[in-house]
Amino acid sequence: MPISRSFRCSVFIGVSLDGFIARRDGDLHWLTSRGEAAGSDLGYEEFIAGIDAVVMGRGTYEPGRSYDPWPHEGRHCAVLSSTLPPDADPRVTVHRDLGTLLRELEERGTKSVYVDGGQVIRTFLREGLIDELTITTVPVLIGTGLPLFGPTGGDMPLVHLATRVFGAGVVQSSYAVDRTT
Amino acid sequence: MPISRSFRCSVFIGVSLDGFIARRDGDLHWLTSRGEAAGSDLGYEEFIAGIDAVVMGRGTYEPGRSYDPWPHEGRHCAVLSSTLPPDADPRVTVHRDLGTLLRELEERGTKSVYVDGGQVIRTFLREGLIDELTITTVPVLIGTGLPLFGPTGGDMPLVHLATRVFGAGVVQSSYAVDRTT
Repeated sequence: MPISRSFRCSVFIGVSLDGFIARRDGDLHWLTSRGEAAGSDLGYEEFIAGIDAVVMGRGTYEPGRSYDPWPHEGRHCAVLSSTLPPDADPRVTVHRDLGTLLRELEERGTKSVYVDGGQVIRTFLREGLIDELTITTVPVLIGTGLPLFGPTGGDMPLVHLATRVFGAGVVQSSYAVDRTT
Repeated sequence: MPISRSFRCSVFIGVSLDGFIARRDGDLHWLTSRGEAAGSDLGYEEFIAGIDAVVMGRGTYEPGRSYDPWPHEGRHCAVLSSTLPPDADPRVTVHRDLGTLLRELEERGTKSVYVDGGQVIRTFLREGLIDELTITTVPVLIGTGLPLFGPTGGDMPLVHLATRVFGAGVVQSSYAVDRTT
């Protein structure tokens, strides 16, 4: 049964044409360098302006925790992790399981959630919790790395919303998860 | 060292948004039904008009051998397979290894090769033999299946050529392999 919720969950992520979000060692230069060469923020500011909470796993939180300034200032930030100490960082709340995380989002009156990082995106997809995906594909095959997608437990039909071509051959498509079928 | 050749090799293939070209059992209905709903041949006729030879593996040849009419009439058709008997089908030549296949294409004065099927595409990519890729993405996640891409042995930068959006949310992007870097 789908989890009842009052908020929408969106993905906004960059991938290689072969579907990786990072190299195995976490390196993102192949992605960020092409994003910068595109000569635009690729719609990120417009996307994030409508977001009031961010959810990520430890794999996404750790490399970002030392960013200065902290990119999620003024926005609720939840980390789904079985290992991160609950008091690790006053800027985030740590959740051991999806149920408590979703309850917290609900209780805070959250409207719009940015779901970031491969593992958390796959968990939310499997649970039928993703409403919209914006996938920005950079023109390179990297062969191996951390995949964006994984098993879904069945077909998940999507509705294509828009496709934009940016500089440097970056192609961005947005989809809504089709709940009518 | 790249193999010297006089012909260009192109890929023209449909995938799910999560990068699969078929379900594990070979089923393509999720793909072909959306292709039909797009209300166009998705540029296939234009693509195939410029092709004089087709290369495929046994996994692609077998399901297609009984198509009536044979889709590659009038076009040289080579199957790369370690198991298909050489005299299995007078419409195709069978090659046990890539070297003899490439030599045959060269000797025939081939100009433009359509490389079809996941395994053969991955082999040609790894060997640096692909010049152009046209990837048609249908709006569905299928979770598991036969992947289009695999290990490449290094980064393969691409040049974006064009993106077209068809009906039914089908998005097609073409890329050239970038040999300038």
